[in-house]
Amino acid sequence: MASKLITIVAGVGPGTGAAVAKKFAASYPVVLLARNPDSFESLAEDINKSGGKAIGISTDIADSNSVKAAFGKIEKEFGSGVGAAAAVFNASGKFVRKPFLELTEDDFAAGLDVSGKGAFLFSQATLPLLLKGVDAGSRYPPSLIFTGATASIKGSAMMSSFASGKFALRALSQSLAREFGPKGVHVSHAIIDGVIDIPRTKGWLKDAGPDAKISADGIADTYWHLHIQPRTTFTWEVDIRPYVEKW
Amino acid sequence: MASKLITIVAGVGPGTGAAVAKKFAASYPVVLLARNPDSFESLAEDINKSGGKAIGISTDIADSNSVKAAFGKIEKEFGSGVGAAAAVFNASGKFVRKPFLELTEDDFAAGLDVSGKGAFLFSQATLPLLLKGVDAGSRYPPSLIFTGATASIKGSAMMSSFASGKFALRALSQSLAREFGPKGVHVSHAIIDGVIDIPRTKGWLKDAGPDAKISADGIADTYWHLHIQPRTTFTWEVDIRPYVEKW
Amino acid sequence: MASKLITIVAGVGPGTGAAVAKKFAASYPVVLLARNPDSFESLAEDINKSGGKAIGISTDIADSNSVKAAFGKIEKEFGSGVGAAAAVFNASGKFVRKPFLELTEDDFAAGLDVSGKGAFLFSQATLPLLLKGVDAGSRYPPSLIFTGATASIKGSAMMSSFASGKFALRALSQSLAREFGPKGVHVSHAIIDGVIDIPRTKGWLKDAGPDAKISADGIADTYWHLHIQPRTTFTWEVDIRPYVEKW
Amino acid sequence: MASKLITIVAGVGPGTGAAVAKKFAASYPVVLLARNPDSFESLAEDINKSGGKAIGISTDIADSNSVKAAFGKIEKEFGSGVGAAAAVFNASGKFVRKPFLELTEDDFAAGLDVSGKGAFLFSQATLPLLLKGVDAGSRYPPSLIFTGATASIKGSAMMSSFASGKFALRALSQSLAREFGPKGVHVSHAIIDGVIDIPRTKGWLKDAGPDAKISADGIADTYWHLHIQPRTTFTWEVDIRPYVEKW
Repeated sequence: MASKLITIVAGVGPGTGAAVAKKFAASYPVVLLARNPDSFESLAEDINKSGGKAIGISTDIADSNSVKAAFGKIEKEFGSGVGAAAAVFNASGKFVRKPFLELTEDDFAAGLDVSGKGAFLFSQATLPLLLKGVDAGSRYPPSLIFTGATASIKGSAMMSSFASGKFALRALSQSLAREFGPKGVHVSHAIIDGVIDIPRTKGWLKDAGPDAKISADGIADTYWHLHIQPRTTFTWEVDIRPYVEKW
Repeated sequence: MASKLITIVAGVGPGTGAAVAKKFAASYPVVLLARNPDSFESLAEDINKSGGKAIGISTDIADSNSVKAAFGKIEKEFGSGVGAAAAVFNASGKFVRKPFLELTEDDFAAGLDVSGKGAFLFSQATLPLLLKGVDAGSRYPPSLIFTGATASIKGSAMMSSFASGKFALRALSQSLAREFGPKGVHVSHAIIDGVIDIPRTKGWLKDAGPDAKISADGIADTYWHLHIQPRTTFTWEVDIRPYVEKW
Repeated sequence: MASKLITIVAGVGPGTGAAVAKKFAASYPVVLLARNPDSFESLAEDINKSGGKAIGISTDIADSNSVKAAFGKIEKEFGSGVGAAAAVFNASGKFVRKPFLELTEDDFAAGLDVSGKGAFLFSQATLPLLLKGVDAGSRYPPSLIFTGATASIKGSAMMSSFASGKFALRALSQSLAREFGPKGVHVSHAIIDGVIDIPRTKGWLKDAGPDAKISADGIADTYWHLHIQPRTTFTWEVDIRPYVEKW
Repeated sequence: MASKLITIVAGVGPGTGAAVAKKFAASYPVVLLARNPDSFESLAEDINKSGGKAIGISTDIADSNSVKAAFGKIEKEFGSGVGAAAAVFNASGKFVRKPFLELTEDDFAAGLDVSGKGAFLFSQATLPLLLKGVDAGSRYPPSLIFTGATASIKGSAMMSSFASGKFALRALSQSLAREFGPKGVHVSHAIIDGVIDIPRTKGWLKDAGPDAKISADGIADTYWHLHIQPRTTFTWEVDIRPYVEKW
């Protein structure tokens, strides 16, 4: 029964993750995954107050036991046969930008831990639920959406950690799109090429005029559009940037 | 006044062009350009009957005089100050697939005439109208959308004519996105990677099961989504293929 | 008999074309094509004086009659059964950089005429000779090499003419690589990403320190390396830039 | 004094690594790194017998202590001030090709451990030596070359482990090219797109005719060409495939 299908968002915070969760919460119960409960508590409350349903689960997405525990809680909450209509991987590791020879091993690993291993664990945990969503006759093709960045297609100087992770994430998403598309799961990758308008970036790009930062709600609208594309018309990759961005 | 804004579609026929025209006709008067009136007559009739407004103009998009005449008619019909909310370039030259050494000069030119020169002429004619759309306070950022193909990013054997044209079109669209984005015009490029489900392709891909061809309406929905993206959140490129496509 | 094989270079001038011609002239008689005899006269003289053999033929590479006449002269000079060991397309149309709406139809056509039609005509004329080179047991796989630019993979603002041409050229080269590789002809595309050190660019990039411009001889050495790659080990695309280039 | 400069190759075995080591051994003492001494013992012997100098060091390239120990041995052997003329990263993790949902965490990590972390450790260990090579006036710009694969730019179904690693490696190489190019170190990435002709692939591609596999010596020749490019003319990326390859 399609009504049981849920949406799972990894990496909620004040930007894309929260906007995506709210957007999808209008149609599905949403599960919010973040390491720190501060990242999802008020968001879950907002969604629950406004007629939606949301639960937050503190999860270290790069730790297999933590991910296993999180999906155990999801089954407990929604039933062991629960299917998913959508899963959005929006987590990013620590952003490190420094001269290559000053990187510690942990600095470098920061990108690959989350964007590599974390995305792998999230995909392995959500794909069975998305396939159940296909079997359950989901109104829209169950969707697995990954959030990329400029660094997904450009390895800039001093950005090897972040870029390695984001390139790896793009490879994973493309491989999954090719394997799971024919099974009815729509896998997409969004290249977010610019500064997102969130509290942390307040005051950035002041000289660029209004609307120079990406709207998280705008991203969420595009993710929703990807979700509702029929299986005749799947988009794998989309880029998103503000109209004034230099690229 | 935004209500005056129009949409112009070059390359209407039984597939993408017609679907896009119908989709945008729900919000704007549409102008249908095609070389052969057969391509737009019944479509214009359908739109006009169902409460929209459409006019068709027989145009050779690769001929500057023909394009000039067409836009003269548009001004005559909608007023000399008319602005555009959207312009969609969906024309394709003759599709030629043959051994390179058997190509005539005209065969090779077929790709570049329409996808190169034709797209140039269409862009030069529509951008002033789209900029007027910006000035007129268009509800959604005026959009210039180009239809690409697999051959936009892959030059296959025996496909040099088509691929040269489609690569050139992609270059044009990217250059325009960078120049006109900051002026408020949203320029996009869609890579249509598969067979579109139209009368001409009936019976194709029979063994691939249902929904193995791209829905023209699905493409139109994605073009409309590109159109309604706010200027904080512009997509330049999107790919579209059926879920079973090998890529 | 491999000794008869020649090299044909289109677009000789004081930079890449001349350097390539000299490099290949150490092994093959070379034919120099340029519109203006000033571009090849002293170069041919230099090569002929230093023990090589070169002839120049005034050719408008975008004009089929001119190209036909040029290859008629080649047959007259080298015999009607002459084969080629290498052909290098180094011609570029007029470089136009201006606001899109200020481009004339001729401005826009400048890119596609040479990089599209010109490259097509050159390829159709040289491939039969290169195939003869294969049959003649050329020591190295006969090579067809195209000179690209930054604009081959990036459509910058105000560069739609040049970029459209260079994208089209890249498509052509890839299509030919796929069709003629299996026939033994090695087709390559070089992305020259920077300013070449020629008389015209003297004084450019003064603040970037020594060696900030690309050496035309360096390009020629890489083209020669592409030429001598065995058929087990073909490179289609290579990028070249100075060590200090921002990219 | 340039004569002291060495070459370090990670990932020697019967294919590319050995061919590269032999090629560079004609000009430099070479250090051979591989996990298993079987991979370098006879190769080192061959090089030492034929007038070159080679030492093998058993190294787990994805383990920082092992890498540290290896470079300690290099200093002990060649002196603490030793510089490098070239470093080649040719290691690959276990190749895993299976349905995504059957991958173990270790399967997936196999790609990123070597191509991500291993390449990072190798780069951090070799770049200081390569910079010393610049200071020492190396005849050719010190070179850091990475071996990629088809999976560096294409994430195929069931290949997420290998592709994630190879995409990450490509990101690292591009980031390093941009950071260390201006310091005089030439960083390159080679996309090896086909089956290499080694004992393990004997009998593969039988129906494709002769020369259907990539020659490891051909790869080594191209790596050497990358090495001798002057700093005016740096190539970052090159692709290599057999002439009959479908791509």
